[in-house]
Amino acid sequence: MLPTSHSYTASSFQTIAIFAKQKPSETVHSVDDITHSLTQIAEALAKTGRRVVFGSQTAERFSLGSYEALDLAQIGELADVAIIVGGDGTMLGIARQLAPYKVPLIGINQGRLGFMTDISLEDMMPVLQDMLNGKVSSEKRSLLQGTLTRNGAVMHHTLAFNDVVLSRGSGSGMVELCVHVDGHFMYNQRSDGLIVATPTGSTAYSLSAGGPLLHPSLSGIVLVPIAPHALSNRPIVVPDASEIVIEVVGGRDSNVNFDMQSVARLLHGDRIIVKRSDHAVTFLHPEGWSYYDTLREKLHWNEYPSVQGRLK
Amino acid sequence: MLPTSHSYTASSFQTIAIFAKQKPSETVHSVDDITHSLTQIAEALAKTGRRVVFGSQTAERFSLGSYEALDLAQIGELADVAIIVGGDGTMLGIARQLAPYKVPLIGINQGRLGFMTDISLEDMMPVLQDMLNGKVSSEKRSLLQGTLTRNGAVMHHTLAFNDVVLSRGSGSGMVELCVHVDGHFMYNQRSDGLIVATPTGSTAYSLSAGGPLLHPSLSGIVLVPIAPHALSNRPIVVPDASEIVIEVVGGRDSNVNFDMQSVARLLHGDRIIVKRSDHAVTFLHPEGWSYYDTLREKLHWNEYPSVQGRLK
Amino acid sequence: MLPTSHSYTASSFQTIAIFAKQKPSETVHSVDDITHSLTQIAEALAKTGRRVVFGSQTAERFSLGSYEALDLAQIGELADVAIIVGGDGTMLGIARQLAPYKVPLIGINQGRLGFMTDISLEDMMPVLQDMLNGKVSSEKRSLLQGTLTRNGAVMHHTLAFNDVVLSRGSGSGMVELCVHVDGHFMYNQRSDGLIVATPTGSTAYSLSAGGPLLHPSLSGIVLVPIAPHALSNRPIVVPDASEIVIEVVGGRDSNVNFDMQSVARLLHGDRIIVKRSDHAVTFLHPEGWSYYDTLREKLHWNEYPSVQGRLK
Amino acid sequence: MLPTSHSYTASSFQTIAIFAKQKPSETVHSVDDITHSLTQIAEALAKTGRRVVFGSQTAERFSLGSYEALDLAQIGELADVAIIVGGDGTMLGIARQLAPYKVPLIGINQGRLGFMTDISLEDMMPVLQDMLNGKVSSEKRSLLQGTLTRNGAVMHHTLAFNDVVLSRGSGSGMVELCVHVDGHFMYNQRSDGLIVATPTGSTAYSLSAGGPLLHPSLSGIVLVPIAPHALSNRPIVVPDASEIVIEVVGGRDSNVNFDMQSVARLLHGDRIIVKRSDHAVTFLHPEGWSYYDTLREKLHWNEYPSVQGRLK
Repeated sequence: MLPTSHSYTASSFQTIAIFAKQKPSETVHSVDDITHSLTQIAEALAKTGRRVVFGSQTAERFSLGSYEALDLAQIGELADVAIIVGGDGTMLGIARQLAPYKVPLIGINQGRLGFMTDISLEDMMPVLQDMLNGKVSSEKRSLLQGTLTRNGAVMHHTLAFNDVVLSRGSGSGMVELCVHVDGHFMYNQRSDGLIVATPTGSTAYSLSAGGPLLHPSLSGIVLVPIAPHALSNRPIVVPDASEIVIEVVGGRDSNVNFDMQSVARLLHGDRIIVKRSDHAVTFLHPEGWSYYDTLREKLHWNEYPSVQGRLK
Repeated sequence: MLPTSHSYTASSFQTIAIFAKQKPSETVHSVDDITHSLTQIAEALAKTGRRVVFGSQTAERFSLGSYEALDLAQIGELADVAIIVGGDGTMLGIARQLAPYKVPLIGINQGRLGFMTDISLEDMMPVLQDMLNGKVSSEKRSLLQGTLTRNGAVMHHTLAFNDVVLSRGSGSGMVELCVHVDGHFMYNQRSDGLIVATPTGSTAYSLSAGGPLLHPSLSGIVLVPIAPHALSNRPIVVPDASEIVIEVVGGRDSNVNFDMQSVARLLHGDRIIVKRSDHAVTFLHPEGWSYYDTLREKLHWNEYPSVQGRLK
Repeated sequence: MLPTSHSYTASSFQTIAIFAKQKPSETVHSVDDITHSLTQIAEALAKTGRRVVFGSQTAERFSLGSYEALDLAQIGELADVAIIVGGDGTMLGIARQLAPYKVPLIGINQGRLGFMTDISLEDMMPVLQDMLNGKVSSEKRSLLQGTLTRNGAVMHHTLAFNDVVLSRGSGSGMVELCVHVDGHFMYNQRSDGLIVATPTGSTAYSLSAGGPLLHPSLSGIVLVPIAPHALSNRPIVVPDASEIVIEVVGGRDSNVNFDMQSVARLLHGDRIIVKRSDHAVTFLHPEGWSYYDTLREKLHWNEYPSVQGRLK
Repeated sequence: MLPTSHSYTASSFQTIAIFAKQKPSETVHSVDDITHSLTQIAEALAKTGRRVVFGSQTAERFSLGSYEALDLAQIGELADVAIIVGGDGTMLGIARQLAPYKVPLIGINQGRLGFMTDISLEDMMPVLQDMLNGKVSSEKRSLLQGTLTRNGAVMHHTLAFNDVVLSRGSGSGMVELCVHVDGHFMYNQRSDGLIVATPTGSTAYSLSAGGPLLHPSLSGIVLVPIAPHALSNRPIVVPDASEIVIEVVGGRDSNVNFDMQSVARLLHGDRIIVKRSDHAVTFLHPEGWSYYDTLREKLHWNEYPSVQGRLK
């Protein structure tokens, strides 16, 4: 575990944990390819005198028996940095689990660059070497903690890195939600659902549903209604110090999920309480990294005109 | 001028300035009506031993010769609170001018309640009395400072409470803008224009152009493209500590305005630099006020279903 | 059943069927209220020598034993016009069932005026008398026919007046749909679902999901993606002579519904074929009726400014 | 001029006109490149015994003195087909001018494929040969006719292939427009402007402003407000048999343009009358052409996921 200081040197990163996506995407890389890449990273880092450990599932999945394998809690205690080889989804999962331990993360993408995994597998080695020598940009990402209560009792409590989503069930019809923020009544909303997203999550489902982009360093949380009944129910950004309480008050069938992972069916009267988590995740990027470069790349800004032109 | 402390008592408000909209809207209230209301406020407050002063333009417009009349700078130095009788536009104008003096503001609406003027002329007296006795909710609103530079020289420098708007001129065709945030290149945008808005401005032009609502206490600024050429050029919220630099790089004819007030024509190469102002404005509301009540009222949330229903 | 001619006279409407919403909304009207209104209509019309029949469910629900009660098929054969007392949902249901019989419909709203039920219960009698004397505007509304096929076999075939909706199930994750129009591949869409709506349905779910309004006399069908993964997957309007084939190609759990009524779970490979139905429904309105009046009323155009003003 | 029949054979195209963009885009092709391409087409077609003529401006611009050069009216009378080498803008301009003559058009793009110019300069020859031998798909595109009247007098009357756009002038503030359709009052709209677009124009400015895509064979016209004051002022599609009358009733400064070309300043009381033109334009495409292929290509559907994924 690193101190919260944000200036890193070559000696900052003595113990390095490595995780990989459990299911390599078939069309891009085989299990053998991934094993090869992981071994390549491990060997290069070991050569520089660093301790390299693998997540235990990763070690097993990719037959990395010759390396030290640890579980997440052990890695959380020991590692100075974690390298995640996969896509944004893999990054998200590990980040959520390591959040309590303050281990900073580096994301390497197996396929196309992601929003969070911004180093490509092909040319990772020189980039990684530079970063582990202290040439890094670091940034903090906030998480949400979501609590489901039923009749006052806590039923579920978990972290979300992207979003907490309440939505209607599989039938037709809408869900009706009563939303309070910091004890103030916001609205009763009838819709397909409501997305509560972090800045990180603002490039995910929230964006599809019409939400704005939030810069990762913005201290904000966005509430984005999905197909709301009232046309003036627009996305709203609140300070991330807010406590958001959403009560299910109508609709036949509804559920909540956290980062699309854990799903719970909801009853009328159930409440979801969403707050910024006390934990945060530090991402490390190559020196000179800019979030806007990632947005431009991923959202194809500037690249292709999409509509017929009218520049004179 | 008040200290920055946010707890007010009956003795906080000894000197009270009053401003009114210069042009009463013809359909709602006559000049005589307004004069009557202003006199009513002034008399009631004077009776409680307070010093009442009018803005000099207001005093002249509504023939309030028997009261003390001061200019804005004098009021800025002397007044403990300013009461504005008008609409959101009037409030905006006075707020921008009083911002450097930290005088808190109370807004009274002549017509329908506004986003900022949330006390109605009809039942203002008991509400005002309570507020001046210390029963107030206060909130801070940020402002933007906008600077236009040409060939490195400052051409214009002003405050904006709602927004700084770059837009295409009267012909057809788009404007092309190159946007940097904190020294990082964001994008080259081709569009009808770009709105840079405060949380206060997020309920104005920005909302019409598809921007999100920002809670007033959010430390954020939203950039909202107007009819952008690239469909993925979505609204983006950045921290309000950001410095936003917009350079005009293409398009036949463009201009910038600040709160729709001061308009300047732009040349290619001109830059607009937008930052949060060091000044902020304090709004006072009746005790128990909630921003969400205002939003619900103004945006008709919960009131009328707008589309055919599908709640089961 | 009436001829397709669109000019009506007092003799056009000899046999009149009446239907009412089965569940009067508790907050507005009691069962007794509705029974009273229905009796009032029936008596007034009988006095003018017309034959009045009730839908059998309506007769039973509101204890109208002294009147003739017929089932839908009989009414379809006999009635010159059907009066529906309820809301848009009631109207929709009866319209779909009477569509094959070409019986024109008049909608009377128990509560607030609807998009289709545009006569209020309070002042219906003089309006109805005028209409049945031939002072009517008539308009045709198209319907969709939707067919679900599995491995080439027809599983379900039904009419939809508003929309056919494919959507993801209750879990998280998206559905992936492959869409062909008139045999041409349109796209593979990943989203929460896809709404295929008539002009009538363009004011319902489709509008919530970001679709455009379609004038009822437009020969078009609109496809509106719900929270699509690709930001350029915008609503698209195709001619209503088109055959739209949607195949489920991905996603864990999905279903289809027709006017929010009949819901079927879908498997990968299932196809939904949507076309304009050969049937159409005729709505009768008071003379001088305009669709735009309804839109203005329901969508509150012109009534309340929603954002801060900037008219000079 | 061709008969309106839509089946073409090798003998359908005896006289072929060729036009090119007057200003070749510097980054892609030089004047010499274009001259070369035009000569190549002309020679190949002349060899097959066809008569090849150039637009007089094109002949002059690209020094094609050895070929027959005619003005637009002559070409309109004589040509069986016109080949346009340029971009969508060039195509639009020629299409509007040739519309009265019913000459079908083929579009060849100098740069990236366009919405209308769907044959690339690089591999045009075999494609063109096939098309002129009758292997074509043809489709009709509608145009608008726009008339500006002031105090009842016609000030301007012109065709638009994409759109008629009323918009605010260069200052701040909105324009207020009163819209009637077929004599029915639609709304008073306060906004930055209103776009009235054909299906062809639905992929241009209209799309940027939030309008839907309209299939070219849809008999519809879309009205798209630009940054409207009322959030429920959504795009609306009306039948293309409609007469749309827009009167300027407020705002300081406004103007109208037709296909971004001819711009006129407007006064309060000015009216713009928009209808479908009696003329239509026929586009010829390579056999098997599908509009959806063009949309997919231009809007990057299916290509790149834009937001973080959530397919399970």
